Amino acid sequence: MHRKEVAKLAGVSEATVSRVLNGVGPVKEETRKRVMEAAQQLNYVPSALAQRFALRRSGNLGVILPMLPKVNLFSTFYFSEVLSGIGITAKQRGYDLLMLFREPDEPRDYVNLFRTQKVDACIVLGAQDVPNERAALAELQDGRHPFCLVNQRFDGESFNTVDADHQMGSCQAVKHLAERGFKRILFLNGPAVYSNSLDRLDGYRQGIEEAGLTYDRSMVLVGNYSRKSGYKQAEAVAWLIREGRTDAVIAANDRMAIGLLQGLKELGIQVGKDVALIGCDDSDGARLTDPPLSSIQVPFYEVGCAAASRLLDTISDPRNSFAVKLPVKLIERASSAAVAFTES
Amino acid sequence: MHRKEVAKLAGVSEATVSRVLNGVGPVKEETRKRVMEAAQQLNYVPSALAQRFALRRSGNLGVILPMLPKVNLFSTFYFSEVLSGIGITAKQRGYDLLMLFREPDEPRDYVNLFRTQKVDACIVLGAQDVPNERAALAELQDGRHPFCLVNQRFDGESFNTVDADHQMGSCQAVKHLAERGFKRILFLNGPAVYSNSLDRLDGYRQGIEEAGLTYDRSMVLVGNYSRKSGYKQAEAVAWLIREGRTDAVIAANDRMAIGLLQGLKELGIQVGKDVALIGCDDSDGARLTDPPLSSIQVPFYEVGCAAASRLLDTISDPRNSFAVKLPVKLIERASSAAVAFTES
Repeated sequence: MHRKEVAKLAGVSEATVSRVLNGVGPVKEETRKRVMEAAQQLNYVPSALAQRFALRRSGNLGVILPMLPKVNLFSTFYFSEVLSGIGITAKQRGYDLLMLFREPDEPRDYVNLFRTQKVDACIVLGAQDVPNERAALAELQDGRHPFCLVNQRFDGESFNTVDADHQMGSCQAVKHLAERGFKRILFLNGPAVYSNSLDRLDGYRQGIEEAGLTYDRSMVLVGNYSRKSGYKQAEAVAWLIREGRTDAVIAANDRMAIGLLQGLKELGIQVGKDVALIGCDDSDGARLTDPPLSSIQVPFYEVGCAAASRLLDTISDPRNSFAVKLPVKLIERASSAAVAFTES
Repeated sequence: MHRKEVAKLAGVSEATVSRVLNGVGPVKEETRKRVMEAAQQLNYVPSALAQRFALRRSGNLGVILPMLPKVNLFSTFYFSEVLSGIGITAKQRGYDLLMLFREPDEPRDYVNLFRTQKVDACIVLGAQDVPNERAALAELQDGRHPFCLVNQRFDGESFNTVDADHQMGSCQAVKHLAERGFKRILFLNGPAVYSNSLDRLDGYRQGIEEAGLTYDRSMVLVGNYSRKSGYKQAEAVAWLIREGRTDAVIAANDRMAIGLLQGLKELGIQVGKDVALIGCDDSDGARLTDPPLSSIQVPFYEVGCAAASRLLDTISDPRNSFAVKLPVKLIERASSAAVAFTES
């Protein structure tokens, strides 16, 4: 199919066809419409686009993101850091970034993104271990479409993943507190649909046991990673503190820790003095609270870089499959600096 | 050009051609390669893709973002809020978001994004009033490609824009301080290549004059909107405070205000007591500093929503051109709560 035939059918010059299809130079709206209709009728596609199709290269790296109700996604530390790492790496490798928002209940037709050549490869953020997600990812895997997960494992599947060592993080936090004499360490975890919540719980339990303390299921509370869910636990935690049933808290992210800190402050309980508190993420906020918040530093930016880089490597050679786990590090600040008080 | 001819050239069945081109079902790698080569040779594109081309619809809303050295872009409050607004609105309107990172020196061939049908419309963030940017945008305008600017005007051009009323913001801040008796109000602005910096300066000047004070050019300092650039001004500001030459500071964003606050604290100067301080953005950080930071609340999320929504309206009817300006609001916190001390 040639440009000439499109020009003939539309009754314009070949130069006009070029101008319309390339979107350059002034063209009357009526002429533009005629050319587009002729092109559509003849199934004409300029050769550059046809080539791009044949090479199956969109030049886009897809990022699937959950739509979380009432959350400005980009404003959460986790997503913004990971996306920065992905974005910079994609740019360095000559890719643009296609953000694909998915509602919780929306069908997950990930394969279609590849079929319609919207993306050449795809990173899935905020995946949950629920049946329809698992099925959609298995379908991608079966079709040999390049994709990877960040911060989420699916046990029994060999999906490409990049993650941080969350287990190591909460284990370190428990041992840090135990060394300072804290013995009744509460753990405020996130939901179990995220494998990183389970990893953190494993690490908490491991730390408790290695410190010679006794694991007590009732010492594990659950929030949803929002600041509000930390704030809401303040009354229950304040009661446990006043009853002498807890002397330290580890929260599975900084947002919950900061919410809890604010709630405790309102109830007259001073973090860093009446109770020790450790967050997780080492976000900007951890440096700004009063007292500054000890936190497990997670290299989310580097996680994003590694995900994009390793994934793009699999395009040229699918044998480059990977499961990366980056180390974390406890950053000590005033919220856990005190030594435990002698027992009353 | 038909699927039949591709099948013939590749020596496979038409069903196999479909499987390969649609990326469904199992196909041997060798077969896949043969089909793709045949399709490329014949310039064959499946009709769904050809139609999408003819309709000139990629389903993508482009967002052009500057690559700022050493800045995790998504982690800055401004970009993350605006992008959240854009992302949610795009999703509601059935668009995916294509992020296009541009290096400062990179040629700005925005028109090409439309020519190659990577995007249907495009939002430009972090634009600067420099000649090559102005030229690239004028080219988009001439080609009638739907685009808009956020938070940046180009005087003399009728580009679509969405912005917040920055002039109103710094004017309010000056008057708030003047009412409390502060008379020597320093202004820490951002670079003049951003029209919003110029707007803030206009507002500062207007406020100074309306409060019956005298505008003094030497009371305007310039940073680059980073926390570090605020921190770096601490020594100069501390000197001015000790000399009695300033009693209050307005910073053009919270990051610079927080950097300045930290620097002053290290020099033994207490914000909220020795000097009043007001930031701008009302970011999360403003609530977390000690003392909490007064700040001009800018509805960046709503700015993003408005930009995406108004821009997508222009696709169906280019006459829907727009220049939106959303109001801002001063949030008072402890950093500017004190009343000015009697002069020594």
